Amino acid sequence: MPRSGISGTLRSPQIDVVIDTGNPFLNRTVDGFLKIGAVGACKVAAEETFDCLHRGDVSKRKVEHALKKMCKEGAYWGTVAGVYVGVVYGVERVRGRSDWKNAMVGGALSGALVSAASSNHGDKIVKDAITAGAVATAVEFANYLT
Amino acid sequence: MPRSGISGTLRSPQIDVVIDTGNPFLNRTVDGFLKIGAVGACKVAAEETFDCLHRGDVSKRKVEHALKKMCKEGAYWGTVAGVYVGVVYGVERVRGRSDWKNAMVGGALSGALVSAASSNHGDKIVKDAITAGAVATAVEFANYLT
Repeated sequence: MPRSGISGTLRSPQIDVVIDTGNPFLNRTVDGFLKIGAVGACKVAAEETFDCLHRGDVSKRKVEHALKKMCKEGAYWGTVAGVYVGVVYGVERVRGRSDWKNAMVGGALSGALVSAASSNHGDKIVKDAITAGAVATAVEFANYLT
Repeated sequence: MPRSGISGTLRSPQIDVVIDTGNPFLNRTVDGFLKIGAVGACKVAAEETFDCLHRGDVSKRKVEHALKKMCKEGAYWGTVAGVYVGVVYGVERVRGRSDWKNAMVGGALSGALVSAASSNHGDKIVKDAITAGAVATAVEFANYLT
């Protein structure tokens, strides 16, 4: 007896944009900006979609607000990631080694940079640098484990 | 003419604690807890040391406060990391593949778990799950770049 059924697969879209600036440092920074900026924008999109579904109303104003927020947060995530990736690459070149200390130093430096750029000063920059360094180290360790 | 000089090297302490529970899932979780808990505790130690140096006074009460905070924050970081590492391992086993989607799903699941355990509910858990999933994905992408 013949049987019939439906089989389907769900594939995530594969988009890979590669921009070659001719400089490995810039390449990484741009790549980090684009990829992680996209993740940040997707996060806002998911959040706003959830909000709309939850409240049950979608208006033009809300979509515009969501788009603006996506651009803003995407740019922020992208910038932070670009700075981090660039700084880690720089630290790796200077130290000539590739270990978790690069992540720590890179995290601390980029934390301080981002904090200074957000017009914090003094103590706050140092604290942000410590936190960012610790988070980067923790992420590096978590990498080895997963 | 003989020349004299001083040469020294600075080495970071190498401590590696391995606890074998006989179960790969538990091993990873315990490893994540210990390693990333230690990073969290070091972060608090660095912050408190900076605070003491900045204000210029060290009292017994402050050291006690710092130690308590180290334990508390270390345990929190460790728990979050343990849950994340364990969940990602579980997702990998279930999916049978190892790519960035594991990090996304693992991040979202552990974000929801940690959020629920922190006695949040409803919307807040979903938002935390979205944020954690996005952060885990961003970190996974940043990994490929550094």
